[in-house]
Amino acid sequence: MARAPHSSRRSRPPCPPSALTGPLEWRYATKRFDPDRKIDPAIRSALERALVLSPSPSGLQPWRFVVIGDAGVRERLRAVSWNQPQITEASHLVVFAARTGLTPADVERHVQHTAAVRSVPVESLAGLRTMIGGFVEQLRAAGRLDAWCDRQAYLALGTFLTSATLLGIDACPMEGIDPAAYDEILSLPAQGYHTLCVAAAGHRSPDDACAGLAKVRFPVEEVITRV
Amino acid sequence: MARAPHSSRRSRPPCPPSALTGPLEWRYATKRFDPDRKIDPAIRSALERALVLSPSPSGLQPWRFVVIGDAGVRERLRAVSWNQPQITEASHLVVFAARTGLTPADVERHVQHTAAVRSVPVESLAGLRTMIGGFVEQLRAAGRLDAWCDRQAYLALGTFLTSATLLGIDACPMEGIDPAAYDEILSLPAQGYHTLCVAAAGHRSPDDACAGLAKVRFPVEEVITRV
Repeated sequence: MARAPHSSRRSRPPCPPSALTGPLEWRYATKRFDPDRKIDPAIRSALERALVLSPSPSGLQPWRFVVIGDAGVRERLRAVSWNQPQITEASHLVVFAARTGLTPADVERHVQHTAAVRSVPVESLAGLRTMIGGFVEQLRAAGRLDAWCDRQAYLALGTFLTSATLLGIDACPMEGIDPAAYDEILSLPAQGYHTLCVAAAGHRSPDDACAGLAKVRFPVEEVITRV
Repeated sequence: MARAPHSSRRSRPPCPPSALTGPLEWRYATKRFDPDRKIDPAIRSALERALVLSPSPSGLQPWRFVVIGDAGVRERLRAVSWNQPQITEASHLVVFAARTGLTPADVERHVQHTAAVRSVPVESLAGLRTMIGGFVEQLRAAGRLDAWCDRQAYLALGTFLTSATLLGIDACPMEGIDPAAYDEILSLPAQGYHTLCVAAAGHRSPDDACAGLAKVRFPVEEVITRV
């Protein structure tokens, strides 16, 4: 279970600014994917690793990512997604789900796992347990626990979309779905999770008219305030 | 106002998978920044551009990012952030805020702006207006509109953290703050926004003991389900 500490030195120089902003300008919410162009397996693995590595508060990872490969399930999901073609045409389809009613047992599982990974006695993490547990119970008492987990899954969605873009993969985040129908098809409630949204990923079809549309963003001074 | 359509061709090859996962393994929630190492201006610009380019549903951008440069304001914010040193030591500090009570006027502003950027008659976007407006009113009726905007700001946080990591910038997402006190200090409610969280960014201090800790993530099979 233990893994080597992550290196405090990078093995390569960081990417230059234009190598980030160029791809981010290139991306768009892809409506039509080329169904014949699959994501390269090494890239697919990197995308999944990015999901696993997405940051979360105190490392709690209150989420589940469901990768839908089965064509029949894809068809059923498309029927409850306003028949949007990305659901069946994209090479990769990930359902983003969040924990429902996070429990003290989830916190304990994380603390025990942390002790194992870092090879420290679990007793040394008593402060961490108290801190996370107290924060979670405050959220529960305020009726905001599920909403808080939901947000974290959106942070992971941001990690996924940015990662895909850098790897040259087109993607489409999709909220126009019936989350309750997804939950039923994927049996998520029985596992303690609920559907939030979907990301389709693959390669854009040459026929996607949306690819040529100018990107619409408010001017920076309306989005970023400086104090 | 009009901008050139984004290119459907990339000007450079995508980054190889290890150039994504290497930096993601390298990152951690930085507790101590080197107060003397500032972020290079070109990198700072790229990070802000990444925020502007972060995806949002139908492009609504229901957020505001507040970049705190003023040392006095940083001190006041630190006092309502459990005195965490990142608030004053990091080179760059961004407050992530979301729209409160998104209005039909916000939708209209976006539709008008889209028409201007894409040089199309606003009448041609009637369908877009109806679609977005209907979705927003559904969320409002269900009492879920603010929570929905909040999620989108977390997607932008994911964009920011991943972008920083790729650019070799250390960052720390922070929820351990008093959002109401932030709102007051930054006068956000009067502008129609509310504070969610903060991201500090810069370069890690050589003294940050957390840099050497092993990264803790559940095994991939507990995080990703395959169907």
